[in-house]
Amino acid sequence: MTSKHPSESLTVLTDLVLPSETNPLNNLFGGELLARMDRAASIAAGRHSRRIAVTASVNHVAFNKAIPLGSVVIVEAKVSRAFKTSMEIYIDVWVEDRKSGIRTKANEAIYTFVAVDEMGKPVEVPHIIPETELEIQRYDAALRRKQLSLVLAGKMNPHDATELKALFV
Amino acid sequence: MTSKHPSESLTVLTDLVLPSETNPLNNLFGGELLARMDRAASIAAGRHSRRIAVTASVNHVAFNKAIPLGSVVIVEAKVSRAFKTSMEIYIDVWVEDRKSGIRTKANEAIYTFVAVDEMGKPVEVPHIIPETELEIQRYDAALRRKQLSLVLAGKMNPHDATELKALFV
Amino acid sequence: MTSKHPSESLTVLTDLVLPSETNPLNNLFGGELLARMDRAASIAAGRHSRRIAVTASVNHVAFNKAIPLGSVVIVEAKVSRAFKTSMEIYIDVWVEDRKSGIRTKANEAIYTFVAVDEMGKPVEVPHIIPETELEIQRYDAALRRKQLSLVLAGKMNPHDATELKALFV
Amino acid sequence: MTSKHPSESLTVLTDLVLPSETNPLNNLFGGELLARMDRAASIAAGRHSRRIAVTASVNHVAFNKAIPLGSVVIVEAKVSRAFKTSMEIYIDVWVEDRKSGIRTKANEAIYTFVAVDEMGKPVEVPHIIPETELEIQRYDAALRRKQLSLVLAGKMNPHDATELKALFV
Amino acid sequence: MTSKHPSESLTVLTDLVLPSETNPLNNLFGGELLARMDRAASIAAGRHSRRIAVTASVNHVAFNKAIPLGSVVIVEAKVSRAFKTSMEIYIDVWVEDRKSGIRTKANEAIYTFVAVDEMGKPVEVPHIIPETELEIQRYDAALRRKQLSLVLAGKMNPHDATELKALFV
Amino acid sequence: MTSKHPSESLTVLTDLVLPSETNPLNNLFGGELLARMDRAASIAAGRHSRRIAVTASVNHVAFNKAIPLGSVVIVEAKVSRAFKTSMEIYIDVWVEDRKSGIRTKANEAIYTFVAVDEMGKPVEVPHIIPETELEIQRYDAALRRKQLSLVLAGKMNPHDATELKALFV
Repeated sequence: MTSKHPSESLTVLTDLVLPSETNPLNNLFGGELLARMDRAASIAAGRHSRRIAVTASVNHVAFNKAIPLGSVVIVEAKVSRAFKTSMEIYIDVWVEDRKSGIRTKANEAIYTFVAVDEMGKPVEVPHIIPETELEIQRYDAALRRKQLSLVLAGKMNPHDATELKALFV
Repeated sequence: MTSKHPSESLTVLTDLVLPSETNPLNNLFGGELLARMDRAASIAAGRHSRRIAVTASVNHVAFNKAIPLGSVVIVEAKVSRAFKTSMEIYIDVWVEDRKSGIRTKANEAIYTFVAVDEMGKPVEVPHIIPETELEIQRYDAALRRKQLSLVLAGKMNPHDATELKALFV
Repeated sequence: MTSKHPSESLTVLTDLVLPSETNPLNNLFGGELLARMDRAASIAAGRHSRRIAVTASVNHVAFNKAIPLGSVVIVEAKVSRAFKTSMEIYIDVWVEDRKSGIRTKANEAIYTFVAVDEMGKPVEVPHIIPETELEIQRYDAALRRKQLSLVLAGKMNPHDATELKALFV
Repeated sequence: MTSKHPSESLTVLTDLVLPSETNPLNNLFGGELLARMDRAASIAAGRHSRRIAVTASVNHVAFNKAIPLGSVVIVEAKVSRAFKTSMEIYIDVWVEDRKSGIRTKANEAIYTFVAVDEMGKPVEVPHIIPETELEIQRYDAALRRKQLSLVLAGKMNPHDATELKALFV
Repeated sequence: MTSKHPSESLTVLTDLVLPSETNPLNNLFGGELLARMDRAASIAAGRHSRRIAVTASVNHVAFNKAIPLGSVVIVEAKVSRAFKTSMEIYIDVWVEDRKSGIRTKANEAIYTFVAVDEMGKPVEVPHIIPETELEIQRYDAALRRKQLSLVLAGKMNPHDATELKALFV
Repeated sequence: MTSKHPSESLTVLTDLVLPSETNPLNNLFGGELLARMDRAASIAAGRHSRRIAVTASVNHVAFNKAIPLGSVVIVEAKVSRAFKTSMEIYIDVWVEDRKSGIRTKANEAIYTFVAVDEMGKPVEVPHIIPETELEIQRYDAALRRKQLSLVLAGKMNPHDATELKALFV
């Protein structure tokens, strides 16, 4: 399989915040944003792997900024690192002010998807070669996140998580 | 404010997997499950705080088991630890087999909610006193997760994250 | 088939009133509540029969209390009586006040479901043995309701509806 | 207020059965049909009263015929009798076969709506004068149904329900 | 195949404007109205052809009047002209004022549908014979619109579009 | 007001075809695509005008290619010409094959939006200066389309529609 670049999986989902997607403060529901990010990330994972891709895990997601009803929300998803059958997808969420046109970062999230065949069995995916500085930085951090995920799931001994351990010692 | 127990915020959302919520493999979309868990968690956070509660972050979520169309899905959310204005919500997801009635654990997730007043300003929440063994275990781990979240957000020096550091050293 | 107790089919669906589910007075639409009750009842019927269960009829439903946008609504469904292939499901709907946490009874409804096989053909369901006083009272009333339903459908002569006739004579 | 005829409130809602509205047998969910009937009935009640109309109760509804995915469903709602502030709405549901164009009666339902002002307070509605034989028959039966509803709610002594009692004695 | 009249395909879809279907001015979203008109038109095309009918094109649609939240909207669709395998559907949209009951024309739209078999292959449809003056007028204009559509798609030379040319010369 | 370029309003909405959006042939419903295009076009119009933008009309839309369930659909909307208070939005719809990654043009549509203030009153929008060859071509054709629209609405005499007339004479 030929390696790919993160830019080849870039997926942009620009849409409005509709009234049915808001909480009692008239802002976008956290759960609705999670669902949109999942759909964009699944398309990005499909573009990298050319396979059906299913959500394997959601890594840390912080909701830093409320997104009011009627906003234009831009969800950008891109594969940040490919492992054997799984891919880490990095998602940036922007809100665009209608009057000024200024975009503000509203959110960042990291999802992991697994490529599967028509029967749901995991299949291998292409390698990825990061290009921009930000892509390289996210590519490197992805390994630490994978180790952290394995440690939290009890599938890796913390002392073997070399990348992660370096952070604390 | 009087302290509360986790059981006082227990929220059960039993519902079906409808056709509009499935992926190309006819299983529940990851994003749809994330949205359901967010709604259940927001009710649990509201029950603990008696306030509007908004999603602050989603901690690690692993999708271990595909949930097919037509399944009965049980989402159980409970406050696991309360901090000053935020609450950690622990969510267990079960799938029930129609024929045998047997419940299988499909998922576990941890969300953080912040209690706010009608203007969206954070307000204090009651303390929580865990009772069962599992509740105590989750209560203790919540502090490590909070430190991890602060470290990942660059808001805490890894060397000050005493609870977390203990894991690796 | 072993008999079951009503508690074995208890189904709890706790969810919010979202903006898309409200009428011009900003209260939950009657039709939306009917749809939620139907889904909860269908799960309860499935839990009793371990079969696909389809709605056969809706008995009297009274909407006593408006349920405002943003409310927490608790739908509790339980099999109240099992006949040959059909089951009566008794549904209690509660609204929970966010500030006080107090639950108020908002609604009561009675649905009838029929258990079917994969081809849609009715199949037999287990007997039911009521336990609590309320369960016994609803179990007894279920027979009167069944007779009433048959009389209204012209499938039973009013004079043969012994249980029902006793009410009026 | 001038009296009206049932035909003045006739409301026709013709729509398809979409995939998201089906149960595991690929037929229209009972709950979805209930929601559609509620919307059509609320429009019919609004046409009679020229007020906001809210669901007060659902009388007996029997699901006689499964309605498969892709069907054309015709919901026809008409006020059958007006009381002081409430209206009984009679709903006929038809399914149309795509190939032959033949319509089959799939369902009949009776809802009660109350007319309210902008604050939700009940207001009086016009009298109704039935015209066709079927309208007269339903108009007469509406009184029996009202008595039955009051008796079941414990708000009328069965012995005072003269219209109803006549059925059994 | 026996010819049919436009009245035989008349489809009426009366429904409310729900909160989830509104734009930031609290009026019905253009896109939501387009979707409702498409469903009504597809039923009308199905009634004329007794086949599955799929959208082929949308001709000019003008949104003349904002439709506020809570309105009763009446979509009326009728086949205006049948060609070999395609049908032009003329759609009138009315808004009904709750208080006065007065209907105002809100919109007019023209869709083209193609009748297909179960494999998606176009199949012939019956001729149509217009009856009322308005039906005859729309029937005649349909030919000009078809020529315009072919010219715009580059499939007909403007000089051969005799009906259309007559308008300008 | 400073003039803008079409590229400044480019809006990309990449999303999946979900099961609830399909017709009986398992392809995307025409009406659902119309709704998605309307949302993307409304964002593009908002980006050009920095105002609320409401749908004024839909010009010719041709559905050339069925879009199957599970497809990745890319809707690209861009302002093609600005008039006094209205904007023509040109929309290209692509379908991406999961396995090959090849994009096929599925649809083209033209919507007109009007910029309005918070009270719904039309307001002026910036001029637009096309840059690429395709943008210039669409900019020129937009005037013909506007004339055609005015002629069809009876608001312009065909003989004054100079741009349009040139096509036929």
